[in-house]
Amino acid sequence: MSVAREPCELSAVDALARLRAGRLTATALMESCLARIAAREPEVHAWAHFDPQAASAQARALDTAGGDGLAHGLPFGVKDVIDTAGQPTAYGSPIYAGHQPAADAACVAMLRRAGALILGKTVTTEFATHRPGPTANPHDAAFTPGGSSSGSAAAVAACMVPLAAGTQTGGSIIRPAAYCGVVGFKPSFGTVARQGVKQVAESLDTIGGFGRNVADAALAIAALAGRPGLAAIEPATPARLLLCRSFDAAQAQPESVAALEEAAQRLGGAGITVLERELPDACRDLGAVHPRIEYYEVARALQHEYRCHGHLLSDTLRGRIEQGLATREATYLADLRNAIRCRHEVAGWIEPGDVVLTFATQGEAPRGLVSTGSAVFNRVWTLLGLPCLALPCARGPNGLPVGIQLVGAFGADARLAAHAAWVERTLAG
Amino acid sequence: MSVAREPCELSAVDALARLRAGRLTATALMESCLARIAAREPEVHAWAHFDPQAASAQARALDTAGGDGLAHGLPFGVKDVIDTAGQPTAYGSPIYAGHQPAADAACVAMLRRAGALILGKTVTTEFATHRPGPTANPHDAAFTPGGSSSGSAAAVAACMVPLAAGTQTGGSIIRPAAYCGVVGFKPSFGTVARQGVKQVAESLDTIGGFGRNVADAALAIAALAGRPGLAAIEPATPARLLLCRSFDAAQAQPESVAALEEAAQRLGGAGITVLERELPDACRDLGAVHPRIEYYEVARALQHEYRCHGHLLSDTLRGRIEQGLATREATYLADLRNAIRCRHEVAGWIEPGDVVLTFATQGEAPRGLVSTGSAVFNRVWTLLGLPCLALPCARGPNGLPVGIQLVGAFGADARLAAHAAWVERTLAG
Repeated sequence: MSVAREPCELSAVDALARLRAGRLTATALMESCLARIAAREPEVHAWAHFDPQAASAQARALDTAGGDGLAHGLPFGVKDVIDTAGQPTAYGSPIYAGHQPAADAACVAMLRRAGALILGKTVTTEFATHRPGPTANPHDAAFTPGGSSSGSAAAVAACMVPLAAGTQTGGSIIRPAAYCGVVGFKPSFGTVARQGVKQVAESLDTIGGFGRNVADAALAIAALAGRPGLAAIEPATPARLLLCRSFDAAQAQPESVAALEEAAQRLGGAGITVLERELPDACRDLGAVHPRIEYYEVARALQHEYRCHGHLLSDTLRGRIEQGLATREATYLADLRNAIRCRHEVAGWIEPGDVVLTFATQGEAPRGLVSTGSAVFNRVWTLLGLPCLALPCARGPNGLPVGIQLVGAFGADARLAAHAAWVERTLAG
Repeated sequence: MSVAREPCELSAVDALARLRAGRLTATALMESCLARIAAREPEVHAWAHFDPQAASAQARALDTAGGDGLAHGLPFGVKDVIDTAGQPTAYGSPIYAGHQPAADAACVAMLRRAGALILGKTVTTEFATHRPGPTANPHDAAFTPGGSSSGSAAAVAACMVPLAAGTQTGGSIIRPAAYCGVVGFKPSFGTVARQGVKQVAESLDTIGGFGRNVADAALAIAALAGRPGLAAIEPATPARLLLCRSFDAAQAQPESVAALEEAAQRLGGAGITVLERELPDACRDLGAVHPRIEYYEVARALQHEYRCHGHLLSDTLRGRIEQGLATREATYLADLRNAIRCRHEVAGWIEPGDVVLTFATQGEAPRGLVSTGSAVFNRVWTLLGLPCLALPCARGPNGLPVGIQLVGAFGADARLAAHAAWVERTLAG
């Protein structure tokens, strides 16, 4: 058990156990989170919107009503590309400043069903694409928290909330998780329903979650998706570890290389088989395929904003939309066919019981807030639709967190989480 | 060329040619459509919302501005589960009566980009699921038009608009097209972006279109998706016709059996190879898999409405949501794996140049407006993600239209449309 000084520092799983045992109230947990926000938000800027009075009222009502939901009493941060009925949702764009959706997104309604409390909306880049928001890395405000789920990763890292929801189209969950030193879990494509999320690239957009350990991040997905099988993860030893440096290994910085090698060595030392494996050769072009598919789809998904509010889009996003509109239909269809073939090949490449170990990011968070970093080690896995999990395990030259990434077979999310919990325990031991 | 008395009776392709040649104005076409609506709407009830003044103003503005979009000047009906910025969108539910979305759905923005005119919103069943709206079959108001895209099919059949957009989760495009005697085109899963559509089952929901001939329906998809390759379909002879009665053939009524047999015979007589083919054996259970996946996903997608407005849902929909919530996670995951395996098997079953010929519906439209009919001959193809097209070709015992269904390989939408245009010409000849 953790030795937390404040309720907001408890893991979600610990807090839930105390809530269930009557040793903690939702109100006390919420007040502790709000106090932490009051202390850290002026520096971190994790929130696009939050209302302390409304959050407290939610918690008091839940304490009165009781319940036994999967995430009963746990405060959640929700990325501001996800609609909330009671709170404005601006999608990271001035076009939607003050916009109030008519309904909760499906995944927010599932959170409420699970007894979770929606503390507020976390900062996203512009429509979960490129232009950063104001969020800083909670470990050092001179560095980016990563993106596009910047606020969700930073809020969890700063103990403002135990859990948060984000989305990933390229590397928007894994990258900020690694930069902020928390666990990010992008489940298999399609795991969490996207109704009510501002979609940008339908073949890629995936909702996921953040927590401060593996079981917490899995619990976030359990609540978002209504999948109780992810709610109580126990560590399980994988049969084999596939060490995959990927076709872009040359872009990894020394701290990421060191973290990967050390993790492989220590896990091998714990008695499992470690095999060096490259992705099937068919996947070699996917790093180039991903942005072409993304931009083609973004151009369509954000066509309304491009037509009616183009001057309020960033130059980068407008350029991507124009690139997507200029992409030939045949190119897009060939890229999609290529991706589908690779998904099928990879299904045979990862055997049941395998876990893939690979880079989470190029290195620790880059300095400055003008860029949220590169998705080079994320976009191929996203395009393949596989469940991915970022696990913090080292520090870089600036003392910032460095993570590794674990990847599982499509649909085997609970198994990946169990293997990741074993990896987490083994590396901590 | 057609010998139309009124502009509203022109095919979309004919009207577009006249608009481009300056022999027809968008205003004249719109006024003709509005006059037809005034004449037929009191009986047909195809529209959830339309504003004649606004529609006329749109047309006049387009005539002034000019342009050369894919669908320049063509009035569209848009199913009322698809958001429109300037017109209310109620999703077929009293929960959203008068609801005004903040933005156009992606596909509506693409229509505007193509120069199409959004005449109004067409009647949908409750959230594109079961409870019918007021729409009647334009051929005989005592019969259902089918659903869930009831208003779109009926509006096109009654020459109120040349083109309309709909969605299909089970059989919601193919069935109403067949019942109303128009061409319905459900493209490959994912062809048209779903941002801004009220999704109910994310693995299944597919946006498609209606027209009064194959080239028109393909033009609708071209405009909705921004796929110019579908905008000018020319008939192409398929290499082989796979006559597939499907595992549910026993549920076909005599008029559908006769329509299928006669079509196969006449197409064979036109010189192409006709082969009797059943779907791969792995697909045998998909008819049962489809509703389990659908309900599991509907329960999540409509969780907000279930939690906050449950008393305004139909008993049927509430029951389905509860069934979906009770479905075990392992069952859903096994069903999804099964569907993915079948999609892969079917990719080898349909060879390039093949077109599948199968039932569109059990028979002609059932009497009464309490049910929109059965999706038994649609849901497996929808789950497989394949492009499907309904083609009217016969009449049933009550004198109502009877259709056949043509199915192509995933992603080969333009090829399916070209083959369907050949089938259409051959059966008309």
